[in-house]
Amino acid sequence: MAIKLNDRYTSTFISASDLASIQPAVTAADQLLRTKSGAGNDFLGWVTLPEDYDKEEFARIKAAAEKIKKSCDVLVVIGIGGSYLGARAVIEYLKSPIYNNLKKDTPDVYFAGNSISATALNELLAICEGRDVCVNVISKSGTTTEPAVAFRVFRALLEQKYGKEGARERIFVTTDRAKGTLKQFSTDAGYETFVVPDDVGGRFSVLTAVGLLPIAAAGIDIDQLMLGAAKASHDYTDTDINRNDCYRYAAIRNLLYRQGKAVEILTAYEPSCAMLNEWWKQLYGESEGKDGKGLFPASVIFSTDLHSLGQFIQDGSRIHFETVLDIADMGNRFAIPNDPANIDGLNFLSGMDLDDVKKMAMQGTVLAHVDGGVPNLILEINEKSAFVLGELLYFFELACAISGYILEVNPFNQPGVEAYKKNMFALLGKPGYEDLRADLEKRLQNS
Amino acid sequence: MAIKLNDRYTSTFISASDLASIQPAVTAADQLLRTKSGAGNDFLGWVTLPEDYDKEEFARIKAAAEKIKKSCDVLVVIGIGGSYLGARAVIEYLKSPIYNNLKKDTPDVYFAGNSISATALNELLAICEGRDVCVNVISKSGTTTEPAVAFRVFRALLEQKYGKEGARERIFVTTDRAKGTLKQFSTDAGYETFVVPDDVGGRFSVLTAVGLLPIAAAGIDIDQLMLGAAKASHDYTDTDINRNDCYRYAAIRNLLYRQGKAVEILTAYEPSCAMLNEWWKQLYGESEGKDGKGLFPASVIFSTDLHSLGQFIQDGSRIHFETVLDIADMGNRFAIPNDPANIDGLNFLSGMDLDDVKKMAMQGTVLAHVDGGVPNLILEINEKSAFVLGELLYFFELACAISGYILEVNPFNQPGVEAYKKNMFALLGKPGYEDLRADLEKRLQNS
Repeated sequence: MAIKLNDRYTSTFISASDLASIQPAVTAADQLLRTKSGAGNDFLGWVTLPEDYDKEEFARIKAAAEKIKKSCDVLVVIGIGGSYLGARAVIEYLKSPIYNNLKKDTPDVYFAGNSISATALNELLAICEGRDVCVNVISKSGTTTEPAVAFRVFRALLEQKYGKEGARERIFVTTDRAKGTLKQFSTDAGYETFVVPDDVGGRFSVLTAVGLLPIAAAGIDIDQLMLGAAKASHDYTDTDINRNDCYRYAAIRNLLYRQGKAVEILTAYEPSCAMLNEWWKQLYGESEGKDGKGLFPASVIFSTDLHSLGQFIQDGSRIHFETVLDIADMGNRFAIPNDPANIDGLNFLSGMDLDDVKKMAMQGTVLAHVDGGVPNLILEINEKSAFVLGELLYFFELACAISGYILEVNPFNQPGVEAYKKNMFALLGKPGYEDLRADLEKRLQNS
Repeated sequence: MAIKLNDRYTSTFISASDLASIQPAVTAADQLLRTKSGAGNDFLGWVTLPEDYDKEEFARIKAAAEKIKKSCDVLVVIGIGGSYLGARAVIEYLKSPIYNNLKKDTPDVYFAGNSISATALNELLAICEGRDVCVNVISKSGTTTEPAVAFRVFRALLEQKYGKEGARERIFVTTDRAKGTLKQFSTDAGYETFVVPDDVGGRFSVLTAVGLLPIAAAGIDIDQLMLGAAKASHDYTDTDINRNDCYRYAAIRNLLYRQGKAVEILTAYEPSCAMLNEWWKQLYGESEGKDGKGLFPASVIFSTDLHSLGQFIQDGSRIHFETVLDIADMGNRFAIPNDPANIDGLNFLSGMDLDDVKKMAMQGTVLAHVDGGVPNLILEINEKSAFVLGELLYFFELACAISGYILEVNPFNQPGVEAYKKNMFALLGKPGYEDLRADLEKRLQNS
């Protein structure tokens, strides 16, 4: 297996009988998922997606990606939440966190419509000046404020620059299959459209057109990504946590949560994992953080953050455990040069590869943190590749669903996200929200 | 005041009598700090630093920054932890999180030596190819593994490219005033050196040469930064938490901690705050996370993360509170264009400025989260400027010191950071660690 769960460093915190005690809940969660009888069962499209996807659309995604690569310097991807994090995570992980700064034969990829900031929008417009631009707007409804505003701006920019006809060739819309104003408008305007499936929620959508079009435009092999995910969909079907690492991960994190560990830290040792960590945080935080329950999802990049959060993790409040991404082969080597002056006293490392030093830093850190009372779960990943990343994405999605059912929440809804939106619309004076507006303004003024 | 603490949204969680009850601890903490009689009292240089700094060195920093601006396309800043986060936070906050992608008349700034990754190092070397490079290495001892390895590599690169003489003009060293091999070597090699003061710990060092040289090289007015910090050093001396917002922040976060809030989330609404949040996480996590105590420091950028962690914050485990950075004037405006087709239904926003929408999103979110049981503390900041950022940095440093003393820890040490280093050195075969190595290897192999 390309991914192995090493849980020996949780053994002082979790006993064999703890594990046995949670097996029935895992089996029940698997049943809910496989028979589609659990909460949120209309959002299970991601389970079979890696094989059961629209092959015609998949071919169109690849063709559109080629068109984008040929016709622009900058691809602006407009989307928020699940319509943003998946693509960015995959591109940064497989290409680079500084992808836009590297020399390459694929376009820069910038993400817009994921914040409400005049500053950020003005900066991106400055970057686009004098360069050829394509746009991929991703929004199921077309009415979410952040991407909708960005789409107004970039559609106007493209029409001004290339005319309506020219803009039509540069705008790619990922939206609802049939419903919604964005779908209707796109059809009328003649934009090529791709589908946000009805039965796949945003945070599970990275392997739909939502993620795949920007990922392919960045030059990543999306066939490999899907094949890896498909393999994972077959590998993790056994209900026995002694034979299914994916379910075992779900089981252990629930056991640790029950022991009072309130925070799960996803720990990686490569800067390129930063956005993958953010994707994971949405996946788990949004799926489990409801009904007053759930592990708070946090993340760190070591060794960077060993020099910032390392102290807390080692010695602070004992409220957390770590899940460590250990990628054996990053496909890069760098031998540490010798220094005749040896001013840093590190000549005992001369000639050693940097990634071998990283491995020792990781092992040393795991043991130190375990000694400090922090359970460490390790996900051993054999290599950085599109195929194995596909496996890993599916591993995390499946573990999340099982984990949410063990926690007895609906892992597929996000009712809490509406609360701020309702208030925001009221304060912005949206018609129909007059009463709420009056109420909120009173609370804001009453000091 | 440019910075105001708005704590009305904690009033349902914290009573006037709670506040009164913690005043004696605040007064005692102030006493420990001001009379230099508390734990870590040999690391209080930052308290008077904004005025009591080396003016001759400050002038040299500005001159070196000018030299760097003139002579290179890329400044590589080598450092980790406190020798990394401060400069990056200030540059991204005042310039841009995509500073390196913007057109400008100052050099790109890349940070190296803050991870152990062959991939990241190879990428940075590729970026430097064919471009003029200067290096600022920042290390008190010169022996910390990550920056030391990076300095080996970039010193060799500069000497190969420019010769020993040429490299001498491009290498700037920030290190101990007198001790250490890096200081000795730099003197011998003729590098210009700057000082990491003995009485200022890494996470409090942003306003020393550690932070100031890269910040100035990025074209930021460091005089304004220091003047702002100096103003804050005078503004926050009153021990009464009814008159001192800085101390009041320290008091409230301790009260919330005592009520079982285990996580403090620093919430900002601008992408440019992401690294400032990271700087804050080191400051608080490393200062307070010890002896089994401390708030777990987390951060989010809204509205981006309202669509990822928003669900958890609204409805998940009730273990957190938020401290919100509310920056009134970012110095940027963007009017939302009208769309005759109104496909998104947002024409009620047409003509409104994006940052005014952001303000409503913020207010709506604060009320929604408070209704969800999440205390919200708001830091109202009047504008984005170097002066006010100087005030804010000092505000957070001082509040951290007071907060740490209230928590009864030494806010100025970081003993836990050594644990992983010791293990790493043993596993790497460093002479003198043979016994520990044997022990650790046994633990790693025993499965």
